[in-house]
Amino acid sequence: MKQKIRIGIVGYGNLGKGAELAINNQPDMELVAIFSRRKLNSTASGVPAVSVDDAAQYQDKIDVMLLCGGSATDLVNQGPQFATLFNTVDSFDTHAKIPQYFAAMDQAAKAAGKAVTISVGWDPGLFSLNRLLAGAVLPQGTDYTFWGKGVSQGHSDAIRRIPGVKDGKQYTIPKDEIITAVRAGQQVSATSQESHIRDCYIVAEQGADHSAIETAIKTMPNYFVGYETHVTFISEEEFAKNHSQIPHGGFVFRSGHTSQGTNHVLEFALRLDSNPEFTSSVLAAYARATFRLASHGFKGAATVFDIPYAWLSPKSGEELRKDLL
Amino acid sequence: MKQKIRIGIVGYGNLGKGAELAINNQPDMELVAIFSRRKLNSTASGVPAVSVDDAAQYQDKIDVMLLCGGSATDLVNQGPQFATLFNTVDSFDTHAKIPQYFAAMDQAAKAAGKAVTISVGWDPGLFSLNRLLAGAVLPQGTDYTFWGKGVSQGHSDAIRRIPGVKDGKQYTIPKDEIITAVRAGQQVSATSQESHIRDCYIVAEQGADHSAIETAIKTMPNYFVGYETHVTFISEEEFAKNHSQIPHGGFVFRSGHTSQGTNHVLEFALRLDSNPEFTSSVLAAYARATFRLASHGFKGAATVFDIPYAWLSPKSGEELRKDLL
Repeated sequence: MKQKIRIGIVGYGNLGKGAELAINNQPDMELVAIFSRRKLNSTASGVPAVSVDDAAQYQDKIDVMLLCGGSATDLVNQGPQFATLFNTVDSFDTHAKIPQYFAAMDQAAKAAGKAVTISVGWDPGLFSLNRLLAGAVLPQGTDYTFWGKGVSQGHSDAIRRIPGVKDGKQYTIPKDEIITAVRAGQQVSATSQESHIRDCYIVAEQGADHSAIETAIKTMPNYFVGYETHVTFISEEEFAKNHSQIPHGGFVFRSGHTSQGTNHVLEFALRLDSNPEFTSSVLAAYARATFRLASHGFKGAATVFDIPYAWLSPKSGEELRKDLL
Repeated sequence: MKQKIRIGIVGYGNLGKGAELAINNQPDMELVAIFSRRKLNSTASGVPAVSVDDAAQYQDKIDVMLLCGGSATDLVNQGPQFATLFNTVDSFDTHAKIPQYFAAMDQAAKAAGKAVTISVGWDPGLFSLNRLLAGAVLPQGTDYTFWGKGVSQGHSDAIRRIPGVKDGKQYTIPKDEIITAVRAGQQVSATSQESHIRDCYIVAEQGADHSAIETAIKTMPNYFVGYETHVTFISEEEFAKNHSQIPHGGFVFRSGHTSQGTNHVLEFALRLDSNPEFTSSVLAAYARATFRLASHGFKGAATVFDIPYAWLSPKSGEELRKDLL
């Protein structure tokens, strides 16, 4: 039997916990340890919890390390540090900083002889792949991206900072009529503000002024002004029952033509019950590809654009051609 | 300025004519000539029409040859012949014969030092890529493929062979309620027969027995028996006006879970006004990738699974990371 790909996880928040599930769903991978800055008593799957400070001792025991920290706070520094020790996969998603993060990771990995894949997930990640593919096939056309229905962490945080709000969650929802129009090949010029609804569920403090909270939300610049915003007050029980998940998803379209009046629409859509569990499942598939990149002698940083799909699958080329082509 | 990728087209049916449009839509490609067994008077774009027998004289003038013949009749022999002379891209789509076609193309191309990409298009092709990706990300799940709304050439031919039928066209249409159920993450066990409607438009001969024609269609084994089949008789004028196009499309879904009760649905959908114009646009993008495969020294046969998306685009790695990731 072939030896399994040995995986480590750095970070044990939502993404790291999702990665733990994802690795255990993969037939050819083995989770070795979970590394955290916090002192963990145990892990859900029973693998050892190890301090990040001791990660270097695992260099010979781990083939690929999944970096499950956040972009802003963790990855900027953690990424290049780990790239000197391990092949890595991360979900760096601060779009404007991707070029400089790529450069830092490429330099660190090249110097250490490691292969690292950055900005893996669904956006950036699977959505990016579909934008590239569709644009290459239909050079004459327009791209559309819609997000949701899904939880926006940033908007939920903003709501919770309003006085009188005990808990709150904001769902971004693309407008059905706009999706339908794009799907039908119509030219749509709606802005992101015009294309999405912001749907808020609020648990108010005892005695709080609901209408003041609603006004504070709807007039919040950058976050809500300009959007169709719905605010619903609910009980703590209902919040716990119906709003404890982190669903997300979205749509990437390209609508283009190959000759006068001959139009084509490509659509890629995701409907995800759990954003972190799905994102980390994408990381797991790219861990396999990164292991193969490294096995082929690649040294430096790659993105999803650089990796053939065959390397994402545990199947051989023969099996893939027979079963999936 | 960088030299353009020099392309030739073999075959000038619907697919070859689509390829001619597709190459002219690509910013970095130049169409050199169109090769045909028939004697062509001219081409739509004005490039030279050349006999296939003279193709060998173009070895130094063409970087990639698009083979636009049919799988059954042309490619089986033509593919390996051309692979000894050119880097090629084809749309071989007889699924059961792909392994042996791959072997024949691989052998011919390796011996001649060429790079060839086989079975390019949307199914096989883009649908295959999505099946691979979704299965790698969600190992626990179910794949669904639906075709249409689109013209089935085989079923249209079968209709036209019925006595009393002057002209006819059959559209395959996936059932909305099944698509909706899969999209919502429901487990659907419908067969292909249960999932699709066969919608027929018939121009009958003067005096023909419409009910006999309808019965002949609905009782035709293999083609229509077991399907919900609709038959509509229309005039020759209406047929010419509304049924002269070759639209197609379809849906690939994977519905899977990452933990108990946490489900995810991936969907890739195409809505195409012209099957041959879109298929040949995919060939054009893979011509670029095949040119790069060859430039990197690859010799032999590849499929869409083996090619990183970056090679489909005229943009550089830096541009792709900045614009699309």
